[in-house]
Amino acid sequence: MVALTLHPDRLLPTDPGVRGIARRLYEAVRDRPIISPHGHVDPRLLRDDPPFTDPTSLFIQPDHYVTRLLHAAGVPLETLGVGSPPLPEDRARAAWRSLCEHWDAFRGTPVRYWFDSELVEIFGVTERPGAANADALYDLIADQLRQPGNRPRALLRRFRIEFLATTDDPADDLAAHRALRADPDVGTTVAPTFRPDRYLEVGRPDWSEQVAALGGDVGDYAGYLAALRERRRYFVAHGAVSADHGHADAGTEPLDRHEAERIYRSARAGTVSPAAATAFRRHMTFEMARMSCDDGLVMTLHPGICRNHHGPTAARFGPDSGHDIPTAVEFTRALRPLLERFGTHPGFHLVLFTVDADVYSREIGPLAGFYPAVYAGAPWWFLDSPAEIRHYQSAVTEIAGFSRLSGFIDDTRAFCSIPARHDMSRRLDAGFLAGLVAAHRLAEDEAHDTICALVSDQPRKVFKVPGQAG
Amino acid sequence: MVALTLHPDRLLPTDPGVRGIARRLYEAVRDRPIISPHGHVDPRLLRDDPPFTDPTSLFIQPDHYVTRLLHAAGVPLETLGVGSPPLPEDRARAAWRSLCEHWDAFRGTPVRYWFDSELVEIFGVTERPGAANADALYDLIADQLRQPGNRPRALLRRFRIEFLATTDDPADDLAAHRALRADPDVGTTVAPTFRPDRYLEVGRPDWSEQVAALGGDVGDYAGYLAALRERRRYFVAHGAVSADHGHADAGTEPLDRHEAERIYRSARAGTVSPAAATAFRRHMTFEMARMSCDDGLVMTLHPGICRNHHGPTAARFGPDSGHDIPTAVEFTRALRPLLERFGTHPGFHLVLFTVDADVYSREIGPLAGFYPAVYAGAPWWFLDSPAEIRHYQSAVTEIAGFSRLSGFIDDTRAFCSIPARHDMSRRLDAGFLAGLVAAHRLAEDEAHDTICALVSDQPRKVFKVPGQAG
Amino acid sequence: MVALTLHPDRLLPTDPGVRGIARRLYEAVRDRPIISPHGHVDPRLLRDDPPFTDPTSLFIQPDHYVTRLLHAAGVPLETLGVGSPPLPEDRARAAWRSLCEHWDAFRGTPVRYWFDSELVEIFGVTERPGAANADALYDLIADQLRQPGNRPRALLRRFRIEFLATTDDPADDLAAHRALRADPDVGTTVAPTFRPDRYLEVGRPDWSEQVAALGGDVGDYAGYLAALRERRRYFVAHGAVSADHGHADAGTEPLDRHEAERIYRSARAGTVSPAAATAFRRHMTFEMARMSCDDGLVMTLHPGICRNHHGPTAARFGPDSGHDIPTAVEFTRALRPLLERFGTHPGFHLVLFTVDADVYSREIGPLAGFYPAVYAGAPWWFLDSPAEIRHYQSAVTEIAGFSRLSGFIDDTRAFCSIPARHDMSRRLDAGFLAGLVAAHRLAEDEAHDTICALVSDQPRKVFKVPGQAG
Repeated sequence: MVALTLHPDRLLPTDPGVRGIARRLYEAVRDRPIISPHGHVDPRLLRDDPPFTDPTSLFIQPDHYVTRLLHAAGVPLETLGVGSPPLPEDRARAAWRSLCEHWDAFRGTPVRYWFDSELVEIFGVTERPGAANADALYDLIADQLRQPGNRPRALLRRFRIEFLATTDDPADDLAAHRALRADPDVGTTVAPTFRPDRYLEVGRPDWSEQVAALGGDVGDYAGYLAALRERRRYFVAHGAVSADHGHADAGTEPLDRHEAERIYRSARAGTVSPAAATAFRRHMTFEMARMSCDDGLVMTLHPGICRNHHGPTAARFGPDSGHDIPTAVEFTRALRPLLERFGTHPGFHLVLFTVDADVYSREIGPLAGFYPAVYAGAPWWFLDSPAEIRHYQSAVTEIAGFSRLSGFIDDTRAFCSIPARHDMSRRLDAGFLAGLVAAHRLAEDEAHDTICALVSDQPRKVFKVPGQAG
Repeated sequence: MVALTLHPDRLLPTDPGVRGIARRLYEAVRDRPIISPHGHVDPRLLRDDPPFTDPTSLFIQPDHYVTRLLHAAGVPLETLGVGSPPLPEDRARAAWRSLCEHWDAFRGTPVRYWFDSELVEIFGVTERPGAANADALYDLIADQLRQPGNRPRALLRRFRIEFLATTDDPADDLAAHRALRADPDVGTTVAPTFRPDRYLEVGRPDWSEQVAALGGDVGDYAGYLAALRERRRYFVAHGAVSADHGHADAGTEPLDRHEAERIYRSARAGTVSPAAATAFRRHMTFEMARMSCDDGLVMTLHPGICRNHHGPTAARFGPDSGHDIPTAVEFTRALRPLLERFGTHPGFHLVLFTVDADVYSREIGPLAGFYPAVYAGAPWWFLDSPAEIRHYQSAVTEIAGFSRLSGFIDDTRAFCSIPARHDMSRRLDAGFLAGLVAAHRLAEDEAHDTICALVSDQPRKVFKVPGQAG
Repeated sequence: MVALTLHPDRLLPTDPGVRGIARRLYEAVRDRPIISPHGHVDPRLLRDDPPFTDPTSLFIQPDHYVTRLLHAAGVPLETLGVGSPPLPEDRARAAWRSLCEHWDAFRGTPVRYWFDSELVEIFGVTERPGAANADALYDLIADQLRQPGNRPRALLRRFRIEFLATTDDPADDLAAHRALRADPDVGTTVAPTFRPDRYLEVGRPDWSEQVAALGGDVGDYAGYLAALRERRRYFVAHGAVSADHGHADAGTEPLDRHEAERIYRSARAGTVSPAAATAFRRHMTFEMARMSCDDGLVMTLHPGICRNHHGPTAARFGPDSGHDIPTAVEFTRALRPLLERFGTHPGFHLVLFTVDADVYSREIGPLAGFYPAVYAGAPWWFLDSPAEIRHYQSAVTEIAGFSRLSGFIDDTRAFCSIPARHDMSRRLDAGFLAGLVAAHRLAEDEAHDTICALVSDQPRKVFKVPGQAG
């Protein structure tokens, strides 16, 4: 067996001079509470607080970061229980064994980094996973999961999560959120996020059915707008701070009223063309920005993903099964209509995420460096790794400074990875700022002030998180 | 108050071994005269040599690098006097106070780096700007500006600027340049640059009016070509070394003569279509290269900017008000017609600038690594920062070597930032070359030779600057 | 004269702590045999084993990496003997002198790095080339080339090349390969590679002529498919492990049978339109993947090159004369049809190469991180340099891990550069892994295991190289 330990200086710069500065900066924020303004934790998990049943349903099944690499290594998604409820113990054990046997497939990835942190810090694992100890580790973790201290709410406290946003369907009744807010036992502010994609993409086969779920009279375009406005109001009343958009592109060209009504009617009739559906969705992105100016919801955009790239896998295992693949993205021209209209609107916030790293210096930095509304979203999804985060840090801050950054978001479905992800970000912030101090571009007191802002004040400000700055 | 100082090792590598090499290389070029073959200093400033009136009109109003970040931070451009003549003192003070209060917005940016250098080296500032000392700093600098030693020409001498190119309208009579060249008191060679964009973009609403200012008989296409040729000749006679192009794309497809004439006629008649105007502009870029082969003007191209992104701001504050935003750019196919015809023409120089960093290794390096005419322009505008310059250094030189680089250009409207910008470039060159030496890829004598070439000989050669190599 | 030496730590990290780790990792693989699964050595060179005639025909004439930079520096390609047989001695000497006189044009490039290695390690050169010693070096190398120990086969042994793939025309009779395989004196496994580009691009003017050379009845589409299938079978029988594709884009949209037949007929009739030819080529890329699923040939794709950019040079000096220029490339949508059909086919391997570095993190990493068939090809052509290799290492492994990499390929026409290129890759692998160890992201035993895999097991596995892992 090989020992598994976490080095206190992990991810910090290796140059001893720079590392010393980085240690001091990291120290200043290491124990700060977590602000998580965008993620995918299920609020019912926190409301119902059931014990996690087994390591596989906790670490593998819901996390496409893990299953996609095992799939690439030849493990069938079925073996891993993708898209299934928790597996019976023999199958859960077999899936866990697959993970341990393919531990080397994760070398160099952030998934491995988070895994190491979670195993050591949450579950007290002391051995590197492998074929030989897979069953023993399964037993150890399964045993830990039966402890009350490892139930979801207890972990939420232990993780020091101050604010946690979930991602929710506009038609959701938000009952789980209501219960959580009413429960004095929950110290974390858990907020819903308005995610209207499927209601705006009128060419989807299930759109007519979906849109009926919004409530209100959606028989015509005016009623549809009113229904969306009402659902946003409902979300705001339940604590939502943002609305999240993940369309194929960042287009925001508005239509004139008659054209929008015409397309809406054809969508209702099931006769909308793909081109018209795209035009309508871009128009609605513009309209959503207008609503944000009215109701204050922060608007987040993360375009440029080809969803469900492998049709046969999507058909069998559903969405989010590991083959959403990025494409090139364009913001400058696509956002122009929206920004000409709302880019200087007081209080409007638009956070831009990308999985096409080219646009950090080419488009996002320049946009965030002029428009008061625009913030550069933290590296997201495929880019949430040390090298890409370092690229983002320099590419965006050299153009737009630190005050135009969104602060870190974890965007995760893997509940136990939340602290490790935020800790990684803090270490990388400390390292980057230490580099600026060591190059005599920034004084250490400024770096200290900046890292505190990045961890606490900036995400609060950008996402309008209620409560006081730390 | 916190002290403001400049560390002698700023921007040099932090590894002690590499830093030692970098110090020696930097030392070799630190005090060399400045060659500035592309920039935006107003030649009348140097001819008339008026004292600068106040810190705001010097540092803030003309510099969109500064005003865009303050605008993003919520300061209205009107407060900053964008697009205005020098402000009355109370407003100038208020603008300066805004800058000092938002000093943290510039952390990590090159603007901050240049500011620090200018405040310390030119004006002897010893305190970090902030809300508390804003007025005192205003007074201190305003007082300095009244000293004869801080008038434009005195600064020009102090900055050791040997060659300075301005950017000029083809219809300009170049009277200021004539006066400067005739004045034995001016040690710097000040040269105009031919910037014909607006005369080539025949779809612009003011084109017909503009083109008449060229002089000559521009009633037909032949006369138009002749007028442009004559204005270039005039510029050459006044010391111009280059012609600068900043169109939306890098297209260079020529038209046949009849088609060019036809479009020209429709432009004169005010009936040209956008597509025809674009085709004509690409054709004219080809024709400008042909003229460069004849008259020797170096051709510089910097496509890929969406100008005046925020219409309402442009309408109120004019162009260059901080919201020109980059877009993806393509050189390989776009330049092919021009390069097939002129890419090996003896003495033709084409310098390619980009704000889309992707093309450094993908297109610019490969083009500059084959065509004798093509040089890789130094990182420009949004990319004139340490990390992006380092990216350029490795991306281009690993493909095309050092001898295909343009040498540094400052491209600035901020007169006082010229020495800080060139010094930053020299430090980064020293650091990059030191890295090659430390990795045993280059001997130190070669690195020494290379940095001297980059600072002095290379820009002289690429831009055909008159005078002897140092 | 300045000494030319190779430092044992060249290319390793400069931080002393990291360097120590890197040295140990490099030591573990330094002397391992070379697996070269993609390159451009002529098999007849190895079959006939003639002495190399002179330094120019060895180092300059066949290597467009060298000639393009000399051309950019102003040396005519004719002087360098591009596209010619070996030059008479006076011209060969003059070409060599040009190289030595322009030695500084190669500073900072990998070509310079490989040159240094080859001169010192193979030919015992001890002086830096330059104008003064050009003739002496020519004589020294020419003399060495007359030694039996420097004939192609002797070098093959000295370079410890265990497996070497060449690149071959599908119509080639592979006589040279047959002879090599039959010769017990040849310890290296030399394998052909099936390179069908010109047979799939039905719009090429010489296509009809070419396709006849395939043999079989290519009068109709079915016969054409059968002929290609038969030639692949023939290549497999002669040891081929892969089929290599270098089209303008990565499109793989299949046509229905009738449409394919129709286009094929029009191609035979010489009336195919460019659009139809492109559609057919994309269809055939799909069909080639289908054949790979049947016959096991690994499929390699390297799209995104604008071939023969400078027409006049191509007309005079032929293809591969230094002006193939990259363009932006897209894989996500282009490969979707192929991957939906074959991306999970057992045993199908698809290796993606790019000269557009943007796609490493945006497309190649995500694709290789899901599809068992997809591997991320090593940095290729313009990107085979230290900084770009480092970018690839972090961009791909943080998304897809090390086990999705192809392992190094040298892709070279410069026979003597093979060991220097592989050694460079090993040093960079050691440096990258040492950085992960120093950042406490990987244990040193894992890094050791990983570098051994990258050098030996991974290329064997990905390219299905016969023989045992080391």
